[in-house]
Amino acid sequence: MANWQSYLEDNQEQFQAEMLEFLRIPSISSLKAHFQDVAKAADWVAARMKKAGIEQVSVMETGGHPVVYGQWLNAENKPTILIYGHFDTQPVDPLELWDNPPFEPVIKDGKVVARGASDDKGNMLVPILAVEALLAAEGSLPVNVKFIFEGQEEIGSPQLPAFIESYKDLLACDLVLSADGGQWGADQPALWVGLRGLCALEINVMGANSDLHSGSYGGVVQNPLHALVQLLASMRDSQGNILVKGFYDDVRDLSEQDRERIAAVPFNEAEYKEALGIDALFGEEGYTPYERGWARPTLEINGMWGGFQGEGIKTVLPNEAHAKISCRLVADQDPKDILECLKAHIKEHSPAGVSISLEVEESTANPYLMPAEHPGNKVAGKILEQLYGKEPLYVRAGGSIPFCSLILEQLGVYTVVFGFGLKDEKAHAPNEFFRLSSFEKGQKAYCLLLHKLAETSAEALRTL
Amino acid sequence: MANWQSYLEDNQEQFQAEMLEFLRIPSISSLKAHFQDVAKAADWVAARMKKAGIEQVSVMETGGHPVVYGQWLNAENKPTILIYGHFDTQPVDPLELWDNPPFEPVIKDGKVVARGASDDKGNMLVPILAVEALLAAEGSLPVNVKFIFEGQEEIGSPQLPAFIESYKDLLACDLVLSADGGQWGADQPALWVGLRGLCALEINVMGANSDLHSGSYGGVVQNPLHALVQLLASMRDSQGNILVKGFYDDVRDLSEQDRERIAAVPFNEAEYKEALGIDALFGEEGYTPYERGWARPTLEINGMWGGFQGEGIKTVLPNEAHAKISCRLVADQDPKDILECLKAHIKEHSPAGVSISLEVEESTANPYLMPAEHPGNKVAGKILEQLYGKEPLYVRAGGSIPFCSLILEQLGVYTVVFGFGLKDEKAHAPNEFFRLSSFEKGQKAYCLLLHKLAETSAEALRTL
Repeated sequence: MANWQSYLEDNQEQFQAEMLEFLRIPSISSLKAHFQDVAKAADWVAARMKKAGIEQVSVMETGGHPVVYGQWLNAENKPTILIYGHFDTQPVDPLELWDNPPFEPVIKDGKVVARGASDDKGNMLVPILAVEALLAAEGSLPVNVKFIFEGQEEIGSPQLPAFIESYKDLLACDLVLSADGGQWGADQPALWVGLRGLCALEINVMGANSDLHSGSYGGVVQNPLHALVQLLASMRDSQGNILVKGFYDDVRDLSEQDRERIAAVPFNEAEYKEALGIDALFGEEGYTPYERGWARPTLEINGMWGGFQGEGIKTVLPNEAHAKISCRLVADQDPKDILECLKAHIKEHSPAGVSISLEVEESTANPYLMPAEHPGNKVAGKILEQLYGKEPLYVRAGGSIPFCSLILEQLGVYTVVFGFGLKDEKAHAPNEFFRLSSFEKGQKAYCLLLHKLAETSAEALRTL
Repeated sequence: MANWQSYLEDNQEQFQAEMLEFLRIPSISSLKAHFQDVAKAADWVAARMKKAGIEQVSVMETGGHPVVYGQWLNAENKPTILIYGHFDTQPVDPLELWDNPPFEPVIKDGKVVARGASDDKGNMLVPILAVEALLAAEGSLPVNVKFIFEGQEEIGSPQLPAFIESYKDLLACDLVLSADGGQWGADQPALWVGLRGLCALEINVMGANSDLHSGSYGGVVQNPLHALVQLLASMRDSQGNILVKGFYDDVRDLSEQDRERIAAVPFNEAEYKEALGIDALFGEEGYTPYERGWARPTLEINGMWGGFQGEGIKTVLPNEAHAKISCRLVADQDPKDILECLKAHIKEHSPAGVSISLEVEESTANPYLMPAEHPGNKVAGKILEQLYGKEPLYVRAGGSIPFCSLILEQLGVYTVVFGFGLKDEKAHAPNEFFRLSSFEKGQKAYCLLLHKLAETSAEALRTL
């Protein structure tokens, strides 16, 4: 029997072909027209897991897009590792910016180009193939492994909290590894120690019972657009400081060590601005750009509209105004508390002459923060160092993976983000791609990591 | 030969039929698809004027929608009166709220229901018919009369300034009568002594070179929607006071007499609020609602948009934000000066990290104010008193008729607003109508007024 290294080498061509097959399924979770395609992707994943030798594979109902579960639990007295990823993708618009059809993957210059290549189909396939290699080469796995792959990450995992609540025993483990995530660069590994949480609501401002003539009523009747502007201006100052009472109450301050770790991450302001086409950065005084984006909460207007948007002039005093806002949250903010603060602020600052109603988005995500020095990170860090020849940076992400905080709250275990996507791979954008070198490196990394985790006690991995 | 009174009585049925014919022409000036219909309405007006006995009738080019001119100048040593109106209409949307097709007029309960019935086709027909009655009954007019009817009032009369400039001699007169305008109520006459002016611009805020992920960039990169909110909030406070430097510099204060005249106009706040479905009025401290709406300038957002407007949540940090704003101006504000104040304010308050560009609307309207006691008003007031049995109120309108200030500036004459529309006739809204009783009363009023004006000297009418 060959070792896992040669198994991986011998099978790369086959694995790549399988990745292309997986990428051809247009599993866009946000679009009803693709509902069946998400289910088809779940079936594909389940079949591939079985082929790899994973046991008890099943596609499970959630009330929305399904979850695929599987396990291999024959490593007696060894830790149990839960591996996470998702098989749904973002939509593809604007379609005209793609060089090739997004669900007709092509391999070019060592990259697979397709929607979902990096986020997350290519990445989530990695641990399945690593497990196959270990089972094929060694006949067993060094640790117990469970898999949970979801089909609703790109829409905020709305059914996942209830699903995890229902299957706590099934999912019980000592550590989670997320195959959704990435490294800092092709030559620079990173460990993610924080993700921001999320809550959102829509503000609807209603004025008179119809649009009014701005000549006849301007100056006499409140304009809902001005009322909205006034309300939004009361929520955030010109530097991005949030003026909502209680908003910052539970924010955990950055320690000196946190700041040192963040400062160790290279940042080139000129390049950053040039890439975005802007002439100035922005944000709270007293924090570096990465501190602002990773460790400070935000309030952003995501959309705003009302009145006349056509060409030319229409001197209307409109009777409606709307805004969608969302907050990125950091430890130890609770999205439910923040929503209450927002509601109280809006109530207190509601201008006269209009009525305001709110639509609160039910899906929220808690912020996620794990100790950089957690045993799980230490083990993963050693593997990354071995593979890249460099110590990993300790980074955070400004976005949210609801799964990480959900699992921490419900199962009491941390998630080590162990993915191999890179920042330039155009996740969520046209011409998304995934490097074949990352695909292969990831497989090695998982084989090495699972072996290394076998040397660690379950108790240590469960450290909170 | 009958007198003009019996001529009008004998011909009402015919006049109503002609008004319906006029209303069937969908002369919407703002829509390119109706460009030919505006020309068709001009031709209709010209033909009807000729039939009335008006001389030198011609449809004149303006570079946009045409003007119809005509005259009767055989009253030697008598004043020359220029009569104004417009044959273009507003659009009809929302079409589904009309009980009948807007350009298929019906007569119901003594009202003609159609787009343009009150504003201004029914009203502008009135002086043509009055002149016909006088010429038919008396063989001549008591004063010299010129007519100017335009086809671009509803789009701000963009070509009218140049047209008037080119035809100063042709249009020279001692007083203008506007057949665009109205009375206070079916039983209460009014003289309009002021109209607000207008200027407008669009603010475009541009951020990064594409929409960004609010998780990755929120708190680090300026959000154009917040920049716009901040800028707009800096322009107007919560009571509607405008915070733009220099904005109020040229505003003429209300005299005690102005305030008394405005206070004499009945105002029922409870009814006003109920009609609009609002629970509170709004506006500058120290001014009554009518003072705010008639004699104080405003700044209103007419439209505002940017980012995600669809259903649900999209956590985007958008890269564009837009707002259209317009100002209603009062004597002695100059729209050009106000635009400069706005530009300077926007420049000074432009947030960092975004770029702001402005699109200034070229059409502006100067505010219009005439002395309540002007000889033209005195004569018109006597006729109104004779017809209604009540002295007229001295009112103003919050809206703009660019023609009135244009003629004052270029020809040095005032306009007496002598129209017979009423506030409840849904001008600019679905189910617009015009009362047949107003139609007939207007014709009588014009016959009486032209006779009365013959007793006044041209010099008195030209008083400035």
